[in-house]
Amino acid sequence: MTVRKTASRPVPAEPPEPDLDQAVLRSMVGYNMKRAYLTVRTDFVASLGHLALNPSQFSALSLIVANPGVSQSALARALSVERSAVVALIDNLERRGFVSRDPVPGDRRSYALRATLAGIRHCEQAVDAIRAHEERAFARLSPAERATLVELLSRVEG
Amino acid sequence: MTVRKTASRPVPAEPPEPDLDQAVLRSMVGYNMKRAYLTVRTDFVASLGHLALNPSQFSALSLIVANPGVSQSALARALSVERSAVVALIDNLERRGFVSRDPVPGDRRSYALRATLAGIRHCEQAVDAIRAHEERAFARLSPAERATLVELLSRVEG
Repeated sequence: MTVRKTASRPVPAEPPEPDLDQAVLRSMVGYNMKRAYLTVRTDFVASLGHLALNPSQFSALSLIVANPGVSQSALARALSVERSAVVALIDNLERRGFVSRDPVPGDRRSYALRATLAGIRHCEQAVDAIRAHEERAFARLSPAERATLVELLSRVEG
Repeated sequence: MTVRKTASRPVPAEPPEPDLDQAVLRSMVGYNMKRAYLTVRTDFVASLGHLALNPSQFSALSLIVANPGVSQSALARALSVERSAVVALIDNLERRGFVSRDPVPGDRRSYALRATLAGIRHCEQAVDAIRAHEERAFARLSPAERATLVELLSRVEG
């Protein structure tokens, strides 16, 4: 068997088989959410690769830029992650000079997080890259359809 | 500070703070997908807990039930996972008596996967549990809205 590789799509390792019956899985809203999310996420992750930001790092940086002085616990709640995970995220962003941890007067256990100028610029580049990614990932949806999708998703989440 | 725990919602570790500005994140369709997906997934995982199935094990079992004789590679393609991951999934399902690996005449490297009666019954219980989970998770969407959501997601994925 000769297999020719092309750049445009992966070559199956075996002769083509008929599509599987996926009716039960596809009848589940959640399965469709998962598959679409994973598809989009792949391009999303790639779109931030040149900035060395993973999705969690971008979310954290973006929220710190928009909310100067935010605490680590407020950030954890907004991101719905454990506080320990936020500490690791901030360690990384601080080490790279993107955010600073400033002491909070009267509260020795807390820090006020602020983005540095380098952090703000890095975030702006990331937002540009994500806008371009979203144009690709949601190209088959009109702006109105994208708005409908967001509205439906927001009610699922709420 | 006195903190009273209630069963209904987690108690914040610190006094309430104003909501963070999340406008940039929320303007991204992908971020809304992620948040809704993670919300739904938590209840989905819990809904299968009593059957000791994780989402991947359920997907694999469901496809084997619907496609008797399917190969591991066809299953890997349908699930968009690596073949090695499918092998681990099938090892687990076979050990528990839910699927059998039957030899394929003329192809010593391949197996035909079939669900056992116990596997079919376990899958039916899982589907019932997932239907109940979806009623909870998507309670705020009408049947028409759920169909719209699935249709939009399918175009994102395609």
